[in-house]
Amino acid sequence: MQEIKIFSPATVANVNCGFDTLGFALHDIGDEMILRKIPERGIKIVNITGADLPLETSKNVAGVAGLALLEHLNLDYGFEIEIKKNLRIGGGLGSSAASAAGVVFGINQFLKNPLSLEELTYYGMKGEAVASGNEHADNLAPSIFGGFTLITSYNPFHVVQLPLPSDLYVTIIQPHIEVKTKDAREILPEKVLLKDAIEQSGNLAGFISGLYTEDYKLLAESLKDVLVEPYRKSLIPLFKQAKDQAIKNNSLGFGISGSGPSMFALCKGEETAKNVQKALNKVYNDSEININSYVSKISDVGCKIIS
Amino acid sequence: MQEIKIFSPATVANVNCGFDTLGFALHDIGDEMILRKIPERGIKIVNITGADLPLETSKNVAGVAGLALLEHLNLDYGFEIEIKKNLRIGGGLGSSAASAAGVVFGINQFLKNPLSLEELTYYGMKGEAVASGNEHADNLAPSIFGGFTLITSYNPFHVVQLPLPSDLYVTIIQPHIEVKTKDAREILPEKVLLKDAIEQSGNLAGFISGLYTEDYKLLAESLKDVLVEPYRKSLIPLFKQAKDQAIKNNSLGFGISGSGPSMFALCKGEETAKNVQKALNKVYNDSEININSYVSKISDVGCKIIS
Repeated sequence: MQEIKIFSPATVANVNCGFDTLGFALHDIGDEMILRKIPERGIKIVNITGADLPLETSKNVAGVAGLALLEHLNLDYGFEIEIKKNLRIGGGLGSSAASAAGVVFGINQFLKNPLSLEELTYYGMKGEAVASGNEHADNLAPSIFGGFTLITSYNPFHVVQLPLPSDLYVTIIQPHIEVKTKDAREILPEKVLLKDAIEQSGNLAGFISGLYTEDYKLLAESLKDVLVEPYRKSLIPLFKQAKDQAIKNNSLGFGISGSGPSMFALCKGEETAKNVQKALNKVYNDSEININSYVSKISDVGCKIIS
Repeated sequence: MQEIKIFSPATVANVNCGFDTLGFALHDIGDEMILRKIPERGIKIVNITGADLPLETSKNVAGVAGLALLEHLNLDYGFEIEIKKNLRIGGGLGSSAASAAGVVFGINQFLKNPLSLEELTYYGMKGEAVASGNEHADNLAPSIFGGFTLITSYNPFHVVQLPLPSDLYVTIIQPHIEVKTKDAREILPEKVLLKDAIEQSGNLAGFISGLYTEDYKLLAESLKDVLVEPYRKSLIPLFKQAKDQAIKNNSLGFGISGSGPSMFALCKGEETAKNVQKALNKVYNDSEININSYVSKISDVGCKIIS
């Protein structure tokens, strides 16, 4: 095998009740990447389309993630990479995670899968740090594992793959504005009320239970964010109007995807998701803000080989 | 049916990662209560053995819980109650919850179970408030439901019954000292670090997942308390020594039961639990603090009729 083409899915992190821990993967929305084996050690990024990103390995998320994995594997050869970005940089759908996920997943394919998906996530994090300034895996894990994932701990690093109820869809609305992850971090307080922390953790626990039992009512009750949304919603124009419409149109819950500006509405069934999409499109089409929107099944697989 | 005898189990609340939300019921350790139908409306407490508690209905946990339920049901008759307390008041094993649980469970039996266990928990909380000053259900829910329970929300009130791995035992060590719930509350800060809140919620989510998948390793990794134990452990003499011994002897995790002073060690298998008990007994037997200790299976049922 000399060349491989990978699809790495977009992801929604945080999912309201699971700030910095929970995420899920989208179906058919994501980036593409070609990896080619080369005799020289290291990672060489030869082409990027769809976004203005550095080709220099040490400044590129995919480059750094790939290098971290190569160092661990101590290979005497390397890879050149072509990246086709379909996901907006800083759009809130795990664009940088998709790049990091694709490269570590792809290298592992070349080697016939010596590493577990959890190990791949660990090395992918080294790349994520280039984009966001800190190592985190709440987008990366679902992009690699697929479905819903939970980071239970960073030390030791542990990812739990959660079950995926069969009829879950998501509506994504992505305003064409910029919310820098750094700003979205800085707007959060260092401390929160203990009672809010408990309410949030009860909701996360309820959501996890709802995934195992396919209890859509419990999922809906649990999709709340009392810790982060109160601060970050101010960064996204028309957030309240969009949320009101999503809830009115029977979504299970609505919130900020990652650090925004994308927003997500989890829905039971595709028809509901499409109705929610119409209502959300209308909210923004009545404004001067450009958007794009998607309806997607939650994907039960993460990165995959497409040729 | 004119008379019924109820067993209401002792419970462990908080369980490290689930402060104010998670709890479980013990097997064969608990209080007993006789309810007798009487023509007069209301609750009449005629006898309490094993503890010095008020017979006056409005000052007694069982009395207030029973009255709250009777008012809801609008019955034209009442109940007299005899209570045999086996659980130490303020011992950290849900003594007051057991009293409240027994009376609401018992009344529901007389009426052929019109109310769900969740509704019974709701009315039982009215009694709990007498003992602790606020309505909470983290002991009450497992005493009524059995097994592990999760309070996902108080408004709307919602209890989720969690699955119970087949080989879970608990070792309880109960020092004969007093820790007032009020003091244990007041020692906690109003605010906590956001990063600690996230770590704790990741652990709770991991624990819930571990219960569904019978993943004892994940249960062990998740049984941590970064929010509450750092403050409350100072209220319990020899806590650190006990914890060290419990971990050294292969318990899955060790922590404060409720607001203390009881402590619990969750264990895989009865033999491990007995070894942990020996080690914990030794820690306190070398001191001047009297204790009692138990090894118990986690009970898959809550309150039950014993005659």
